[in-house]
Amino acid sequence: MNQQTSSRPTTENSVGIVTPKSVDIKDPLKLACGQVLSEYHLVYETYGELNSDNSNAILVCHALSGNHHAAGYHTDNPDEKPGWWDNCIGPGKPIDTNKFYVVVPNNIGGCHGTTGPSSINPETGKIWGPDFPPLRFRDWVDSQVQLSDLLGIQTWAAIVGGSLGGMQAMRWSLEYPDRLKHCLVIASAMNLSPQNIAFNEMARQAILADPDFCEGRYLEQSKAPNTGLALARMIGHVTYLSQSQLEERFGRELRAGSFERGNDNPIQFEIESYLKYKGDQFAEEFDANTYMVITRMLDVFDLAREYNHDPVEAFSLATCRYFVASFSTDWRFSPDRSEDIVGALIGAKKQVSYLNIETDRGHDGFLSDIPRYIEGLGIYLSKVAGEIEDAS
Amino acid sequence: MNQQTSSRPTTENSVGIVTPKSVDIKDPLKLACGQVLSEYHLVYETYGELNSDNSNAILVCHALSGNHHAAGYHTDNPDEKPGWWDNCIGPGKPIDTNKFYVVVPNNIGGCHGTTGPSSINPETGKIWGPDFPPLRFRDWVDSQVQLSDLLGIQTWAAIVGGSLGGMQAMRWSLEYPDRLKHCLVIASAMNLSPQNIAFNEMARQAILADPDFCEGRYLEQSKAPNTGLALARMIGHVTYLSQSQLEERFGRELRAGSFERGNDNPIQFEIESYLKYKGDQFAEEFDANTYMVITRMLDVFDLAREYNHDPVEAFSLATCRYFVASFSTDWRFSPDRSEDIVGALIGAKKQVSYLNIETDRGHDGFLSDIPRYIEGLGIYLSKVAGEIEDAS
Repeated sequence: MNQQTSSRPTTENSVGIVTPKSVDIKDPLKLACGQVLSEYHLVYETYGELNSDNSNAILVCHALSGNHHAAGYHTDNPDEKPGWWDNCIGPGKPIDTNKFYVVVPNNIGGCHGTTGPSSINPETGKIWGPDFPPLRFRDWVDSQVQLSDLLGIQTWAAIVGGSLGGMQAMRWSLEYPDRLKHCLVIASAMNLSPQNIAFNEMARQAILADPDFCEGRYLEQSKAPNTGLALARMIGHVTYLSQSQLEERFGRELRAGSFERGNDNPIQFEIESYLKYKGDQFAEEFDANTYMVITRMLDVFDLAREYNHDPVEAFSLATCRYFVASFSTDWRFSPDRSEDIVGALIGAKKQVSYLNIETDRGHDGFLSDIPRYIEGLGIYLSKVAGEIEDAS
Repeated sequence: MNQQTSSRPTTENSVGIVTPKSVDIKDPLKLACGQVLSEYHLVYETYGELNSDNSNAILVCHALSGNHHAAGYHTDNPDEKPGWWDNCIGPGKPIDTNKFYVVVPNNIGGCHGTTGPSSINPETGKIWGPDFPPLRFRDWVDSQVQLSDLLGIQTWAAIVGGSLGGMQAMRWSLEYPDRLKHCLVIASAMNLSPQNIAFNEMARQAILADPDFCEGRYLEQSKAPNTGLALARMIGHVTYLSQSQLEERFGRELRAGSFERGNDNPIQFEIESYLKYKGDQFAEEFDANTYMVITRMLDVFDLAREYNHDPVEAFSLATCRYFVASFSTDWRFSPDRSEDIVGALIGAKKQVSYLNIETDRGHDGFLSDIPRYIEGLGIYLSKVAGEIEDAS
């Protein structure tokens, strides 16, 4: 349970250098589709120290492109970028590692160490590839419950997630209401809109159209559908950015060529170059089958489906308190979608704090250094920390 | 100049059956890129009758996927769909063929008969393909001027266009101010936003990634990049539709499969099926090189670029009156973009009528049967007709 943590000299308020942990979970995981993972490998990171009564643990659920490396660094290379939520996790930060024990698992179906489509299926000895079972959010939650048990955490002080991570947190609060005290749902929604689904489907079509996808068997054939995956990411990425942010950052500036008349040189806009770069970078780091699995999970997720499609009825099961945050220019999961969550929580007579952040950062706001957001999250979690202190 | 026009018995207010016309224009067309089209073929349709002093002609500029067939039918097959703007062009309709002589050319660079990338380059005897010169909107305008001269139309009573067609109409009004009296700009913008450019670029990447694109030489190689073109169209099409329209029309309904737990059958959402259908249909009818050429024209178009990026300075050149219309849920060219046009026209002390239509139809509103829109367009054009009558 211990990990090597050293303070990075150049970085204040950092958890420093961290080493991922992992565990082989031998308890079978029965999936919503009916299939069973007889065993699986789960990679995670932890920051801070678990207190004596195991009451100060926070579970952080990552989003589509995220993973277990949420804070700190893996090496002392000064060029290394920190984990994806380093601005929120660390000593003195909103998810304060002086007070909380923070656990960030990589989800099953992922591609950063936890069992997923690029892992070996122990029952066949071959790479899962496209035969990896379709997952539901409840499967992620169930695997996180198995991890909680292994870590000795009966009740999470809080479960926190942005975007897709927020959906996991909400699902937790309905499936295991007595295992969390607070649920923090950031830039999320209770289900995908048809427009959201359309973008996911275009991304999948981009992957499927890449001849190197080989119907998902690219690893066996030593191929990589990087063109398709890069385009898929471009299609997704553009939905994370607001119009105003694009205007501000790229405008109509050219990266190459010229608008001058009298020439037919090809041009490239800055926005094109940026999206291409982001797509190519993602394709190097991510797995196409994982992208297929997770985007489909997103499409299918519908918090209230089995509660007569009534989110009030759904949230009636919950016993935790909620924090909901949205970002004014987010058009992937707009503030309306967060207000729907808040409305349903109020309808179910649950306690909820709601913060809508004015920003031009769009959906990516949830990963951004926006003072009011960081402050709001910090105030909420400092109260959570206070409750733990009062109880001990 | 005559064409076969018969009344379709089942359709009221229709121009009936029409036959496309065409002309070989032998006057060289000097393009903005510096290249010259020594001759080109131009296909167009006309509806109504030109009056004795040639003062009742309206030029309709088509949008990306449009062509010269804007109204009526090509056959008496009762299953045939009418031209793309049949709801606005016809006897008694806003563009009233009892009063106006309506001309709709297919743009150069297109793929419906007018010289474009799938035509033979007369100088090489080979298909142009990817070597078709890059175009600018002014090239379209210049070719339409050549057509105007051939038709004996010195001054258009009005030039009308939606979306990309509105950009042509605005360019006309600056380049040939004395050749039009009214300019109708519908669901358009003075340039593309970086988000608009991003969508165009993703569409191009989808085409480029299709191995059957063959770097644009697919016709010579008897290939068809239909997968790439279909995905390109899906990426474009989703921007034409509003969130609320998608909610209303498709919601989260399934076309195939089931949400039930305990099965891993693949599912398909209605929105996915619809977009796939639209993409495949488009790929059958459209040319990938044309899509590349036109989306790049759109990106580069910037009405005020050569006027110190000042649209007021640009519009100062104009002498016509303007009608501008936008659609409340259009997020491709939002009402803001139309308001920018109106603001610049007012700044340039031009006469402008502006109509923002409350609708859930998004960008496609400009092609839709929305009573207030049809009525507003009709009122404006009936005044134009009245002016012609008064002058004769």
